[in-house]
Amino acid sequence: MAKRLLPSLNRILVEKIVPPSKTSVGILLPEKSSKLNSGKIIAVGPGDRDRDGKLIPVSFKEGDVVLLPEYGGTQVKLAEKEYHLYRDDDIMGTLLD
Amino acid sequence: MAKRLLPSLNRILVEKIVPPSKTSVGILLPEKSSKLNSGKIIAVGPGDRDRDGKLIPVSFKEGDVVLLPEYGGTQVKLAEKEYHLYRDDDIMGTLLD
Amino acid sequence: MAKRLLPSLNRILVEKIVPPSKTSVGILLPEKSSKLNSGKIIAVGPGDRDRDGKLIPVSFKEGDVVLLPEYGGTQVKLAEKEYHLYRDDDIMGTLLD
Amino acid sequence: MAKRLLPSLNRILVEKIVPPSKTSVGILLPEKSSKLNSGKIIAVGPGDRDRDGKLIPVSFKEGDVVLLPEYGGTQVKLAEKEYHLYRDDDIMGTLLD
Amino acid sequence: MAKRLLPSLNRILVEKIVPPSKTSVGILLPEKSSKLNSGKIIAVGPGDRDRDGKLIPVSFKEGDVVLLPEYGGTQVKLAEKEYHLYRDDDIMGTLLD
Amino acid sequence: MAKRLLPSLNRILVEKIVPPSKTSVGILLPEKSSKLNSGKIIAVGPGDRDRDGKLIPVSFKEGDVVLLPEYGGTQVKLAEKEYHLYRDDDIMGTLLD
Amino acid sequence: MAKRLLPSLNRILVEKIVPPSKTSVGILLPEKSSKLNSGKIIAVGPGDRDRDGKLIPVSFKEGDVVLLPEYGGTQVKLAEKEYHLYRDDDIMGTLLD
Repeated sequence: MAKRLLPSLNRILVEKIVPPSKTSVGILLPEKSSKLNSGKIIAVGPGDRDRDGKLIPVSFKEGDVVLLPEYGGTQVKLAEKEYHLYRDDDIMGTLLD
Repeated sequence: MAKRLLPSLNRILVEKIVPPSKTSVGILLPEKSSKLNSGKIIAVGPGDRDRDGKLIPVSFKEGDVVLLPEYGGTQVKLAEKEYHLYRDDDIMGTLLD
Repeated sequence: MAKRLLPSLNRILVEKIVPPSKTSVGILLPEKSSKLNSGKIIAVGPGDRDRDGKLIPVSFKEGDVVLLPEYGGTQVKLAEKEYHLYRDDDIMGTLLD
Repeated sequence: MAKRLLPSLNRILVEKIVPPSKTSVGILLPEKSSKLNSGKIIAVGPGDRDRDGKLIPVSFKEGDVVLLPEYGGTQVKLAEKEYHLYRDDDIMGTLLD
Repeated sequence: MAKRLLPSLNRILVEKIVPPSKTSVGILLPEKSSKLNSGKIIAVGPGDRDRDGKLIPVSFKEGDVVLLPEYGGTQVKLAEKEYHLYRDDDIMGTLLD
Repeated sequence: MAKRLLPSLNRILVEKIVPPSKTSVGILLPEKSSKLNSGKIIAVGPGDRDRDGKLIPVSFKEGDVVLLPEYGGTQVKLAEKEYHLYRDDDIMGTLLD
Repeated sequence: MAKRLLPSLNRILVEKIVPPSKTSVGILLPEKSSKLNSGKIIAVGPGDRDRDGKLIPVSFKEGDVVLLPEYGGTQVKLAEKEYHLYRDDDIMGTLLD
């Protein structure tokens, strides 16, 4: 079974960050802390091609924590884990602490 | 939890300016003073790419007070505060006093 | 409260010319004299960008009296006065006496 | 009141040619002679802009008698007379006697 | 009344070829001989403009007998005769005997 | 009556290959052998024009046996025989034995 | 009957990988192991053409195991075997073990 995916063109493979609904000691967090739709980038494609066939590199790199759109993205299962594929221009920005 | 967002491409992070519905001494302002849909720019993306892959810088900069469209924009919550993301060409102009 | 707007891209700020429904001495004008949808240009944006990111200047300048399309335009209120924003290519021409 | 219009971009101001429904001596013409939708060009815009911002001149000039599309065009009233605005590429050709 | 039309851009003036439903001696032809939708080109426009404003000549010339699309085309009456206007790229090919 | 068609632009004239439903000795073939929608190319156009007006040659040549899309194509009758016109990019590939 | 297909433009011929619903010794696999929609590339087209008519090579090569979109693709039967045709940009990435 396939374990790795090299995304094509400007596709980006993202592992969604699931907000903990309970802390490790069992305390329920207030609801508003789970609102941000974020993910970690696992792999990026080589980029889309411009009109002359040259590659336009994607805006993100492996390891980036990013803000995802509320809708869209394609679910992919690799080695029993769930990922999502987005197009480079659908990802809304990089999140920093 | 993420505290900062670097918008991608020509996206612009805006904090909406909420018109005071009451003055600090409790006097209700007339309704028409609250009509303008404005915001302050918190962060701007590097710009969209043209057909040759070069970046086209956005029209606004951090700190600008801008006129926002009545509809559109994506709500984002960062460090318990609410922001909106717009595309550069959806923002209608810069507001000056 | 904001008093001035610098329109972005190829946006144009227009003050609509309201035809007088009565003359100053109270005579009602015949209905057909109020048909033309015109306005005075208050401010123009720097222009849209072409594929290479260069600015294409707008076709009108501050002070021009122009023919407006019947529909469209975005209402904006600045310092208690009402204006409309149009895109450069939606304005149909310059009116001369 | 405005008496002249300088059309913008590739807009063309046309005065429609109304076919006489009766001849000057009162004879009713057969219906089929009134079918052609034609007009005389009163003013032309400087032309649309190509991708590099250069003007592409319009295909017609002032005084041309042209074939108009059955639908479309925007009605404009100037100095009590009725005109129509068309885009350069909506006008179907030049009519010659 | 107008007798000639110079088509604009890539427009092409066509006189449809009406298949004879009866031969001159009154014999009814079998139905299948009337299926082809063809026409003779009367006049061609100078061609459409490319992005740089240069004319792209049309693919057909006056006198060509062409295959017309089943739908589309604009009916035009000139000097009591009926014609049709097509865009260059709507005409499907040249018919040869 | 027209016997030949020179397709315009990137149009391609195809004669569909009708799979024999019975062999010459009267044996009914199993149904699955008739599934492929194929045709033989009779004539090709000079190609579509790019943005600069230059011709882009079509991908196929006279005599090629090709895979046709399930839907689309325009039926044409020439000299009592039935053909179909396709656009170059609608034909899915070349079939080889 | 046709045995091989050379895809045109940026079309890619894929043989879908059917996940075994039972192992060779008859043990039923858990359902989640069959979720990935993958295929093996059998043949690739020469690539699409850019605005200047030059070929843009496809992103995949014969033998690649790829991730297919959930919907789309055209079913093709060659020599009693079933294949699917995809456009280069519809294939989501290359799968590696």
